[in-house]
Amino acid sequence: MAGHGYESGRLNLPFVGISTFGKRAYVADWDAIEADVAVMGAPFDFGTQFRPGARFGPRAVREASTLFSFGHAGAYDHEDDATYLGPEVTIVDIGDADIVHTDTVKSHANIETGVRAMLKAGVLPVVIGGDHSINIPCIRAFEADCAEKGPIHILQIDAHLDFVDERHGVTEGHGNPMRRAAEKGYVSGITALGIRNVSSTSKEGYDAARAMGDDFLSVRQVRKLGAEGVLARIPEGARIYVTIDIDGFDPSIAPGTGTPSHGGFLYYEVLEILQGVAKRHEVVGIDLVEVAPDYDPTGSTPILAAQVLLNFLGFIFHARQSGGAPAAG
Amino acid sequence: MAGHGYESGRLNLPFVGISTFGKRAYVADWDAIEADVAVMGAPFDFGTQFRPGARFGPRAVREASTLFSFGHAGAYDHEDDATYLGPEVTIVDIGDADIVHTDTVKSHANIETGVRAMLKAGVLPVVIGGDHSINIPCIRAFEADCAEKGPIHILQIDAHLDFVDERHGVTEGHGNPMRRAAEKGYVSGITALGIRNVSSTSKEGYDAARAMGDDFLSVRQVRKLGAEGVLARIPEGARIYVTIDIDGFDPSIAPGTGTPSHGGFLYYEVLEILQGVAKRHEVVGIDLVEVAPDYDPTGSTPILAAQVLLNFLGFIFHARQSGGAPAAG
Amino acid sequence: MAGHGYESGRLNLPFVGISTFGKRAYVADWDAIEADVAVMGAPFDFGTQFRPGARFGPRAVREASTLFSFGHAGAYDHEDDATYLGPEVTIVDIGDADIVHTDTVKSHANIETGVRAMLKAGVLPVVIGGDHSINIPCIRAFEADCAEKGPIHILQIDAHLDFVDERHGVTEGHGNPMRRAAEKGYVSGITALGIRNVSSTSKEGYDAARAMGDDFLSVRQVRKLGAEGVLARIPEGARIYVTIDIDGFDPSIAPGTGTPSHGGFLYYEVLEILQGVAKRHEVVGIDLVEVAPDYDPTGSTPILAAQVLLNFLGFIFHARQSGGAPAAG
Amino acid sequence: MAGHGYESGRLNLPFVGISTFGKRAYVADWDAIEADVAVMGAPFDFGTQFRPGARFGPRAVREASTLFSFGHAGAYDHEDDATYLGPEVTIVDIGDADIVHTDTVKSHANIETGVRAMLKAGVLPVVIGGDHSINIPCIRAFEADCAEKGPIHILQIDAHLDFVDERHGVTEGHGNPMRRAAEKGYVSGITALGIRNVSSTSKEGYDAARAMGDDFLSVRQVRKLGAEGVLARIPEGARIYVTIDIDGFDPSIAPGTGTPSHGGFLYYEVLEILQGVAKRHEVVGIDLVEVAPDYDPTGSTPILAAQVLLNFLGFIFHARQSGGAPAAG
Amino acid sequence: MAGHGYESGRLNLPFVGISTFGKRAYVADWDAIEADVAVMGAPFDFGTQFRPGARFGPRAVREASTLFSFGHAGAYDHEDDATYLGPEVTIVDIGDADIVHTDTVKSHANIETGVRAMLKAGVLPVVIGGDHSINIPCIRAFEADCAEKGPIHILQIDAHLDFVDERHGVTEGHGNPMRRAAEKGYVSGITALGIRNVSSTSKEGYDAARAMGDDFLSVRQVRKLGAEGVLARIPEGARIYVTIDIDGFDPSIAPGTGTPSHGGFLYYEVLEILQGVAKRHEVVGIDLVEVAPDYDPTGSTPILAAQVLLNFLGFIFHARQSGGAPAAG
Amino acid sequence: MAGHGYESGRLNLPFVGISTFGKRAYVADWDAIEADVAVMGAPFDFGTQFRPGARFGPRAVREASTLFSFGHAGAYDHEDDATYLGPEVTIVDIGDADIVHTDTVKSHANIETGVRAMLKAGVLPVVIGGDHSINIPCIRAFEADCAEKGPIHILQIDAHLDFVDERHGVTEGHGNPMRRAAEKGYVSGITALGIRNVSSTSKEGYDAARAMGDDFLSVRQVRKLGAEGVLARIPEGARIYVTIDIDGFDPSIAPGTGTPSHGGFLYYEVLEILQGVAKRHEVVGIDLVEVAPDYDPTGSTPILAAQVLLNFLGFIFHARQSGGAPAAG
Repeated sequence: MAGHGYESGRLNLPFVGISTFGKRAYVADWDAIEADVAVMGAPFDFGTQFRPGARFGPRAVREASTLFSFGHAGAYDHEDDATYLGPEVTIVDIGDADIVHTDTVKSHANIETGVRAMLKAGVLPVVIGGDHSINIPCIRAFEADCAEKGPIHILQIDAHLDFVDERHGVTEGHGNPMRRAAEKGYVSGITALGIRNVSSTSKEGYDAARAMGDDFLSVRQVRKLGAEGVLARIPEGARIYVTIDIDGFDPSIAPGTGTPSHGGFLYYEVLEILQGVAKRHEVVGIDLVEVAPDYDPTGSTPILAAQVLLNFLGFIFHARQSGGAPAAG
Repeated sequence: MAGHGYESGRLNLPFVGISTFGKRAYVADWDAIEADVAVMGAPFDFGTQFRPGARFGPRAVREASTLFSFGHAGAYDHEDDATYLGPEVTIVDIGDADIVHTDTVKSHANIETGVRAMLKAGVLPVVIGGDHSINIPCIRAFEADCAEKGPIHILQIDAHLDFVDERHGVTEGHGNPMRRAAEKGYVSGITALGIRNVSSTSKEGYDAARAMGDDFLSVRQVRKLGAEGVLARIPEGARIYVTIDIDGFDPSIAPGTGTPSHGGFLYYEVLEILQGVAKRHEVVGIDLVEVAPDYDPTGSTPILAAQVLLNFLGFIFHARQSGGAPAAG
Repeated sequence: MAGHGYESGRLNLPFVGISTFGKRAYVADWDAIEADVAVMGAPFDFGTQFRPGARFGPRAVREASTLFSFGHAGAYDHEDDATYLGPEVTIVDIGDADIVHTDTVKSHANIETGVRAMLKAGVLPVVIGGDHSINIPCIRAFEADCAEKGPIHILQIDAHLDFVDERHGVTEGHGNPMRRAAEKGYVSGITALGIRNVSSTSKEGYDAARAMGDDFLSVRQVRKLGAEGVLARIPEGARIYVTIDIDGFDPSIAPGTGTPSHGGFLYYEVLEILQGVAKRHEVVGIDLVEVAPDYDPTGSTPILAAQVLLNFLGFIFHARQSGGAPAAG
Repeated sequence: MAGHGYESGRLNLPFVGISTFGKRAYVADWDAIEADVAVMGAPFDFGTQFRPGARFGPRAVREASTLFSFGHAGAYDHEDDATYLGPEVTIVDIGDADIVHTDTVKSHANIETGVRAMLKAGVLPVVIGGDHSINIPCIRAFEADCAEKGPIHILQIDAHLDFVDERHGVTEGHGNPMRRAAEKGYVSGITALGIRNVSSTSKEGYDAARAMGDDFLSVRQVRKLGAEGVLARIPEGARIYVTIDIDGFDPSIAPGTGTPSHGGFLYYEVLEILQGVAKRHEVVGIDLVEVAPDYDPTGSTPILAAQVLLNFLGFIFHARQSGGAPAAG
Repeated sequence: MAGHGYESGRLNLPFVGISTFGKRAYVADWDAIEADVAVMGAPFDFGTQFRPGARFGPRAVREASTLFSFGHAGAYDHEDDATYLGPEVTIVDIGDADIVHTDTVKSHANIETGVRAMLKAGVLPVVIGGDHSINIPCIRAFEADCAEKGPIHILQIDAHLDFVDERHGVTEGHGNPMRRAAEKGYVSGITALGIRNVSSTSKEGYDAARAMGDDFLSVRQVRKLGAEGVLARIPEGARIYVTIDIDGFDPSIAPGTGTPSHGGFLYYEVLEILQGVAKRHEVVGIDLVEVAPDYDPTGSTPILAAQVLLNFLGFIFHARQSGGAPAAG
Repeated sequence: MAGHGYESGRLNLPFVGISTFGKRAYVADWDAIEADVAVMGAPFDFGTQFRPGARFGPRAVREASTLFSFGHAGAYDHEDDATYLGPEVTIVDIGDADIVHTDTVKSHANIETGVRAMLKAGVLPVVIGGDHSINIPCIRAFEADCAEKGPIHILQIDAHLDFVDERHGVTEGHGNPMRRAAEKGYVSGITALGIRNVSSTSKEGYDAARAMGDDFLSVRQVRKLGAEGVLARIPEGARIYVTIDIDGFDPSIAPGTGTPSHGGFLYYEVLEILQGVAKRHEVVGIDLVEVAPDYDPTGSTPILAAQVLLNFLGFIFHARQSGGAPAAG
């Protein structure tokens, strides 16, 4: 950074500088990704059934992430007495997958290409949506990875089950991703948390989900079980892919989303489950979807998304360093 | 719907189509209401003492209700393993009561006319405010009904007691409805939940309320009692009229209202009480008031209103079908 | 309306009642459209290249149209000393075309079906978008009509030329409609007004447009010519289809749109051209697109759209009654 | 101000300090008003027929007025080479008229009381609405003043004629004030500028207006006449009461109002007419109404209102000092 | 108030009148403060590291406070069966400290001057920020007071520790105040509640805080301890200065702030601690900071601030009257 | 870009990808700037006297600039029949100057360092503010450049004269920059356009400006002169530095600013002057300031800023290529 011409370095306040994820370096060449984590945007929202705008999710989450990016030497958390994401953890931002308006198939294929590049580079892939349909190409991209390293188990934080098979020919909208995932031979199961209220999934969808290995729990059921009880339901030793639909959270803290559903999770409820997963499991992929920032003029929603992602990444690499979870394999 | 010319029917996504309540049929002729439930708007807000705008409550709640209207065969709730509001429950939207600017008396009279028409038709009347003063003509409309079927007990969800007798000549503002109701011979009592903080009701009003049979509890008192404890305080066998002031909820989920008051109810707290009431009592009328949508650009408030109303209607008719609550009449 | 039970009729203030277009009757059966004008929503926005949200255009324009709907006997305009849209002009709202998320082809086909139904019924079709790609199925629906009655000339109000042939396989996005129209044998020409600044159409697109009969003018060029000068460039006797992209207007009065472009038209500039067209030509179809209401919290944009549409309809039927323009057919 | 303890005085930036009008002194005792100008709020909005919220007009205009209040020695205008509102012009803020919810008659009476107090004190009364119905008590308050000093002529800046006699019993809503004024013996005439588009006034209302001495002009008619041409239509020597409905301005600069109407006045068009009136006539009263600030998150609307009022007051007292207009009395 | 000319007094609804704090009298002369409580604004926000706008905190909190100001005889709270802030408690608003743009030193000095004036007058000083750096001059102003009456203990409600010593030369930004306070000989200790997540304070800052007598607890730690447990950690007999950073609260109820942090306090959690402090300790000073109202279009944040301040003042004076806490002195 | 793994290249829609200015390459090393133009953010806003938030100007303008960045081969303008900013013009984004909260001197010094680096690299420096005080270090940075190449003449687009010498010790706030510039020996004069209404500059400031060579014109004066008339007042052959305060534009198109002033410039008025300057003069530096995006939820203001900057850069390099203006150097 000497190039900036400031002999004393930069204070680098959150509002200063280009908005890459966590103000980390931008890597435009997907053949040259070298890091522990790579973050990619997937600004696709033609799959949504109510309010659009998740295409601006990646930009908003990147901008919000700058609020948490002013530590030079990692983020000290006094509750855990731990420093997260110190200089030994490298994160890069590889920009966005290319999106083609009117064309769902091509846009999804471009997202898949990006995740394949990340997996090929051996980094932990983090994808910021976009609507929940972008999970479909993300999971598709894991086919080769799973062929080599074994199946993945999906941990879903969401208000909606997203287990519609097909309606009016639609199979890759934001109501379909978990059904598509469950069909894959390399997805060993799904743990879905926060599922509540009416949605596009019908009773038949719920029955199918149960039959296909989807263990879904409502917010109240999760609260009764507690974090430990929930964690106990995830198969031991499973490689975990985490998909976080921001509407799994309560509208009080995540109003900026397309299909809000009251009665959702509060912050620590999700955080503690994610921390537990980081300690017990290898986390092999993450997506966070459905942040539609223009519906939240307070900015709370993208701040929540950034805060959750950065904390979760902190937990994962802290656990890897502590030996608490197997390193990527 | 064959007339729409789509051989395969309509997908009917939430954002598509005219915004009637729950996308149900609009019935303009109040002499021809045939249904289980009729929904009417009462867009009157000259009774408010701080921020106006509840006149747009009916439009906003109707629009929000479309988010929950894409099930073809009712809404399946996996927590209850029940399908609510299937095709056997008929709901119609009868539009709005006519409102006359500057004229409270005439506007209230028009609201009363609408509720009378609904009661005459034998449907469950649901009125969407408008400010809480619209409860006054709603209750007035029940006089004949109660003469025939017996008195009603009012269940009030609210931040404010609304028990002012008169100030500066005002007797029918949004601070007066429960006092006006308590004066009726056919109102046997009031259970008021969520009452907290300073309001337009003075100490004398609280004393009068107690003396006139108003059993009021704060949010913290309700939390200590639990849903069961609260339900036990409502007289067994009572015919229940429910009036929900959206400011009974916490500003975190219902900021779009005229006189927000921190420390309010969260979603499940109210939902579980309403579910209990639906199981134990005949519900004979509902109003939901004080949604002022323009103060909530996130849309969370009208979504909450729609979600509560649709769930409550689901509970009521599920209980009627299960024999858990006496059918109307 | 006697069914409403008000002996003295309704005052029917703008904020009262269900939001159909102009508070006119809703006709669900597309085989039973009987009126002079039918209005249909086309809430499709997967074709947009920047900010989405035009799917809420139809709802917003309908709601805004209620502001201009409180005259009982038409709207008196003192400047023209004329009463527009009196009871002799019948307008119906036929709801929305069905939209299928992720599927542009099916959604467009459903829009085409609606326009065909309107043309079959012999009404003037008015379609509210949705993004500008919805013009493609609208024009397609005119094929049979033009085979019978002769070609149409398109009058386009827009910031962008929308003359892209194909990019990355996209041929039916919101940058393509005028190219698609120009390819039709039954489109005799295009007059495009307001075209300015950089857009998705490249120099080659402009050259092709000129070659294919598109007479495009910038805002400044229109101002130099004046309304009369512009009207003189439209072939005499042409049957006119008018497509209004709200971004043809200046962002100062139409900020609620996906791709705003400064330097656009002010209100009277467009109004006077539309009034002139109504006097000289038979107007056979109208669409108004790209109102994305959630980007304009003031509501000015949908109010503009409603005000333009209602005035234009008034001009058209006033001219028909005065013999100033040939009646349909 | 020495009491503030700052030896060097105060910089007094616009965002600092209590928001009275122009940061002038607040006078609570209406029997002790001593100044050249007194400003009173009339936060009444039950008279509006669409979007409410003008009750917050006085607060918003006061707050916006602080932006123009950081000159110590008056405001120098380089275009006029004049210093306006120097220390020799005293302005006081007398707070708001008391408003009684649900009660139009009492609220209007309280407004009238305030204006009477100002007239009794011999100051120029400036009233900030509230909706346009507040003009009714303002004009009523002039009865005694006119009995003594002669009739007033009203200069109205507005989109709407506001000449409804009665609808559904309403005679004092925001569609009625000019009819009520025209009925007064001491109102010699009305010049109404900006009248356009459909409104609650029917053709009969326009005919009555003409018959009762209302000279109304549309925006385009005013533009053709020019400021001088318009000023020439106001009877020489008339004592002028100016009523400014903010919706007379274009929605591009005044979106924060209840019933916006496109095609309105731009800033200088109104300013130059007001400057001309100040030079030629004695201005005896002013109201500015219909600022509904919550519909304009940019704040442009109350800033416009404050800027217009402060400039107009500057013109009036500059003219009085220059002998260009007769002093009060 | 007889001067207002209303024989029957004023209804004085919340939206009516000048926005001083609690609609209490404004005292411009800081040498003539006579009251129990004085409220001053400190609209300074150059110390913030992310979103600015806390300079509008004082205006917004004053305006919000009018919602709670319509009781004539104090505010009756039915949960406590107590009437708070009756006529025996006098509160005055002394306006704002003068702020000088670009100049932190001078602005802070002006704030200090105001607090000194309040302390000299013997009132309880309440300062509304502004960003948290304004606590630095507030604490500085207590030097003489503490020399006379003994040291103060600071109770801090906050998301952030604010214990940075110096970064890039900055020692008086909003990340520094608690470090500056801890350095004072007359500050005996700090109890910091709500501290969570990453902030500008590094691990070294946390270590220094512990070493310098700062007892900090996270939200979850406070929840485990309960209000009583927390109160027990504050030294008995301590004179308490309370500094409330609104971001100590959860973004769900306080989104209008510069650096929101999820996982914060809910309303009653803070209220009950403040009530306990009021009962057990002499409270000698209060500041409430970081309300940036323009980031919360719902208005919930300033309403929370006003509600907390007014309740806290009620508790303090109720306790003084009941002998539960030592009177000032 | 082959590294992205898309064989067919990228469609690169505006909403896709990292938000650098115009989606151009980010250059972190200020010793390695190689381009025709370099763009730097100066997110400083402690110099503002009303609404803050210009610190988010650089981010907002960068994000808005993506709307105009989807041409592959430059932007074709049909009015000029010219292609602007083709691949032969290289633009880089060098990020932001480092800002130190509470410290105006250090922040300004860091801005100066950035401009010096750009000048040293021989590029055209473009600085996005930030408030107008950031012009002070920008001009300071030109000292050496002017010593070598001769003085600069400043073209200012602004509502305010910004010619305050000193108030309360403030010499480098946003009311001072033109005074500071005029004091420099290497600033040969100032042409200030758009100056209107009351501001922080007093009559003495206006007199000093005239005396020190500031040729200021109001909006109406500019309109009377026309673009050509205005251009004729700029000394022939002058090297021009252009400083654009976004509040020079009308609030109708630029409401997102700190101190809006009605009656400002419309789009083409400024554009045509800038185009004329580009043709006649060497433009040696540009800053665009006072975009406070959070006050404009429509996004029109940053879109205007981006549109003006990109067009102006297009004009400059088109003129250089055409030989219409002397190349740098």
